[in-house]
Amino acid sequence: MEIKIAKHSGFCFGVIRALEKIEELKNSTNLPIYTFGPIIHNPQVVEKLKSEGVYSVEKLEEIDEKGYLVIRSHGVDKDVVKKAEMLDFKIVDATCPYVKRVQEIALRLVEDGYKVLVVGDENHPEVQGILQFTEARAEIFKIGMEIGNNSKIGIVVQTTQSIDNLILAISSLISYCSELRLFNTICNATTLRQTSARQLAREVDVMIIIGGKNSANTTRLTSISKEICQNVYHIETEEELKTEWFKDVKKVGITAGASTPDWIIQKVYKKISEIGEVFDEKSTFSN
Amino acid sequence: MEIKIAKHSGFCFGVIRALEKIEELKNSTNLPIYTFGPIIHNPQVVEKLKSEGVYSVEKLEEIDEKGYLVIRSHGVDKDVVKKAEMLDFKIVDATCPYVKRVQEIALRLVEDGYKVLVVGDENHPEVQGILQFTEARAEIFKIGMEIGNNSKIGIVVQTTQSIDNLILAISSLISYCSELRLFNTICNATTLRQTSARQLAREVDVMIIIGGKNSANTTRLTSISKEICQNVYHIETEEELKTEWFKDVKKVGITAGASTPDWIIQKVYKKISEIGEVFDEKSTFSN
Repeated sequence: MEIKIAKHSGFCFGVIRALEKIEELKNSTNLPIYTFGPIIHNPQVVEKLKSEGVYSVEKLEEIDEKGYLVIRSHGVDKDVVKKAEMLDFKIVDATCPYVKRVQEIALRLVEDGYKVLVVGDENHPEVQGILQFTEARAEIFKIGMEIGNNSKIGIVVQTTQSIDNLILAISSLISYCSELRLFNTICNATTLRQTSARQLAREVDVMIIIGGKNSANTTRLTSISKEICQNVYHIETEEELKTEWFKDVKKVGITAGASTPDWIIQKVYKKISEIGEVFDEKSTFSN
Repeated sequence: MEIKIAKHSGFCFGVIRALEKIEELKNSTNLPIYTFGPIIHNPQVVEKLKSEGVYSVEKLEEIDEKGYLVIRSHGVDKDVVKKAEMLDFKIVDATCPYVKRVQEIALRLVEDGYKVLVVGDENHPEVQGILQFTEARAEIFKIGMEIGNNSKIGIVVQTTQSIDNLILAISSLISYCSELRLFNTICNATTLRQTSARQLAREVDVMIIIGGKNSANTTRLTSISKEICQNVYHIETEEELKTEWFKDVKKVGITAGASTPDWIIQKVYKKISEIGEVFDEKSTFSN
């Protein structure tokens, strides 16, 4: 059995940067370290950080011993930062610079008089952060939403969206606006991972997608692969792998979301190799 | 046989305005009147004007007796205007204000540092006029054209394009640009005529599209109707109608391009009615 890892997969720039900031903090302070919400969308990484004394919290009031508060890669509401400062936390901003850029573009468009729409998943923290950064003057894009005629529309996109969702949004808006100003803020890491997944899915019999079940970009790699390949499985760790997925399989593709660490990818690779060896031996025996 | 005329068809604002300007001139001067290229894309109207002493010319040098030069509804190159003034013509600008607006937006986008693309028919005088207005700093959009990464792209559209062509253009560009600023300059008259044609084509057995064979918007009404209705005929005058098109036909739809005058539409309507009456009588007789 042949196993191929997608050319572009795993940690992106923003995730590496966020984890480096945590690492620096760990080495330079004895104060407790908190992240507001999970620092990245990977439960295993978050769990490992917890074992090292870095805690993910949802409410600032629940913390007795103040210390550092790290703003996660997806960004947060400006109000959270203000409140944390009032509560005497020291702030370390690990918001991905590409996400920050989306927030700033959205705000600038609002201030320039555009009706600003965000193409993305309404409940995702990145999208929530963008909307809140504009003080709710930007709105989430919805198919069939009321626009009114001859509007000036500004569009920004969640960094981990697929280009197809963006085209769908534009197609449904274009008849109703006189000007449409679109910033394609899908980040390069997302595009490269999606393109690599698409290419690999064409070559293999089974695709394994590794990453948090709560990770938007991992989920999108799964749906993109499913459009091409019949056997696609989204897992978080090697423990979820099932032997029967690989019966009579010649080629397996592996890819991983932008928040999936290398050590998990390596464990999955190793386990699939072992399953493959067992099947290869059986097949030699039966010949 | 029932005959229905599309709710929106025939002369648009820009065409009415151009012809009114000619009419005013005719009533106020004894100097000769020329138009640079056909004033509108309707050969019958151009022929009628010729019989009234208004001549369409392609080269200014060929004119001995100078007089008024009317700039046609599609607009022209700024150089033509300069040259005409140097040759002592009196200029009357009948460029459609909506076309003028496209020229000005394209120039502004170029000056603001955008790579400007025009979605339209390369050889159409309106598109040529837009490109020349920007001193060839805007380009025609072509599927698969080289864009380069992370460009700021500005888009304007020929006023008589279909929205589908615009969506196609955007879909092919969106992956390659960081910012896309689109002015949907398809004019309202075009949109209304296309929507009406689409609605009518769904209801009838035969669609008759009246207008210049050189008219972009009429040709587009024909292709839109052909997507829906099996029997679509593009004619310029009632003389092209063929009796056999209406055999066993219950419902006929008529529409006309933005440069087709009412008197031609009426003649076509009358001739189809007469053909219909003959078939209806025959059908009564055979019953």
